[in-house]
Amino acid sequence: MSAKIIDGKLIAAKVQEEVRLGVAKMKAEKDYVPGLATVRVGQNPASATYVRMKQKMCEKLGLRSIGRELPETATQEEVMTLVKALNADPEVNGILVQLPLPNHIDEEAVLGSIDIEKDVDGFHPVNIGRLAMKGRDPLFVPCTPAGCMRLLKESGVQISGAEAVIVGRSNIVGLPMAMLLQKANATVTICHSRTRDLVEHVRNADIVVAAIGRTEMITGDMLKPGATVIDVGINQKDDDTRPRGYRLVGDVDFDSAKEVAGAITPVPGGVGPMTIAMLMENTLRAAEIAVNK
Amino acid sequence: MSAKIIDGKLIAAKVQEEVRLGVAKMKAEKDYVPGLATVRVGQNPASATYVRMKQKMCEKLGLRSIGRELPETATQEEVMTLVKALNADPEVNGILVQLPLPNHIDEEAVLGSIDIEKDVDGFHPVNIGRLAMKGRDPLFVPCTPAGCMRLLKESGVQISGAEAVIVGRSNIVGLPMAMLLQKANATVTICHSRTRDLVEHVRNADIVVAAIGRTEMITGDMLKPGATVIDVGINQKDDDTRPRGYRLVGDVDFDSAKEVAGAITPVPGGVGPMTIAMLMENTLRAAEIAVNK
Repeated sequence: MSAKIIDGKLIAAKVQEEVRLGVAKMKAEKDYVPGLATVRVGQNPASATYVRMKQKMCEKLGLRSIGRELPETATQEEVMTLVKALNADPEVNGILVQLPLPNHIDEEAVLGSIDIEKDVDGFHPVNIGRLAMKGRDPLFVPCTPAGCMRLLKESGVQISGAEAVIVGRSNIVGLPMAMLLQKANATVTICHSRTRDLVEHVRNADIVVAAIGRTEMITGDMLKPGATVIDVGINQKDDDTRPRGYRLVGDVDFDSAKEVAGAITPVPGGVGPMTIAMLMENTLRAAEIAVNK
Repeated sequence: MSAKIIDGKLIAAKVQEEVRLGVAKMKAEKDYVPGLATVRVGQNPASATYVRMKQKMCEKLGLRSIGRELPETATQEEVMTLVKALNADPEVNGILVQLPLPNHIDEEAVLGSIDIEKDVDGFHPVNIGRLAMKGRDPLFVPCTPAGCMRLLKESGVQISGAEAVIVGRSNIVGLPMAMLLQKANATVTICHSRTRDLVEHVRNADIVVAAIGRTEMITGDMLKPGATVIDVGINQKDDDTRPRGYRLVGDVDFDSAKEVAGAITPVPGGVGPMTIAMLMENTLRAAEIAVNK
């Protein structure tokens, strides 16, 4: 048996197209163009790449992109002042502060200073608090977990009543993903480095979300036949046949897992393209909130 | 085999004594008496009883108790105005809005308007958000789950690495309890009405927290031998031998469970007395935050 491959590129393209149409409609009907501000502090090369990708996607879908950069030496006050100026700017609908910030900056304070109606990354503590509570909904769901949920829905996976196991408990993926699946009535178990019997948990899961950052640690023999596997990991694996000397692989051993799983996301081309697509969707929604005020 | 009974009255008395000493010390050293404001809207008799119990406990431990009442017909604005006045009152360290509020009042807005440094109930979305995130700590943990954690710790239960199953996912018990156990490095599974195989989950648990509000639904034959059982349920069970015609029982069938469990809380006298003790502890801490500002 070979699993159905959940095509993240295709589903992300669908989300992008929805956003592009929504942006065009808003421009036509309201003469308003949604804007995403990116804030980068310092010269982290990965951050520079991520910000550039987001800016390019804005251009592609017709959103306005507002890039702001501060030097590595920027003070807490300077970062907060910039965020406050963007909060007040009516042309800015979403504010994305690229993480990580330099060590001397209080990340929680910066994220908490973003206007909750512009918190398109979904990391404001009030958004997380709402996500964690029954009967309340955050304005914005963090992009990667939102993307994983969309992949599950587009693939027709039954979530209500399913046994779901999250491997990893990061603030940006594992924990919000657990809350989302729980809200969708799955029975959720959060596994992590202190979990005594990971294999036993994974073997009982109808849905496995791997987000622990360990190269190919979930193997096919650990899975329940027919399980849906969402692989959030992006790890470099030595590969002499590649020009860079490595290739990207997930937290799941794709080759063995696809023989047992019912559906599985590849790496790359699974969860990866969804994150930025969901950021665009969140920004469009932020603009809709703003224009309908 | 018969389980060790976790004596909530005894442990709550210990917490009370700690608070009493802390209050006396603050009065002696800082000439300051911690104050708890209770807000009651309408004439719900159960709410009146709960508020009275809290006020009496304040008196007993030397805290100042400030009771505020509004009629059932109070508007959203009137409730919010009262909360804001209490936020501004330097003699008030903790604000407890007794739930449930009348249906026409937006509970989330009221709870979110409490100054986070006076949110001794721990229900402000920012407090819940911090509770739900790795590396962040709420100023105040909701009282019932905080009490359950204290019972586990006082009983010497190993939490890190343990398999923990929460039955029930309410905002006031199940969900925050899941977050607390997860932060303490347990592997947590949240079960609820849509869970397919509750028995299987409970059978694998080293720690079972029952908070689903169903009379004696967890029975001894479902438990792993030696498990620790925390019973948050309070249900009325018909009993003709009692003057009122009923007695209080938990979500766990105590008689069968105590033959299998390693340790178990009784109902009443287990979790119950802890909630109010933790509220007093939170109020003392709120006062410490205020005087050290």
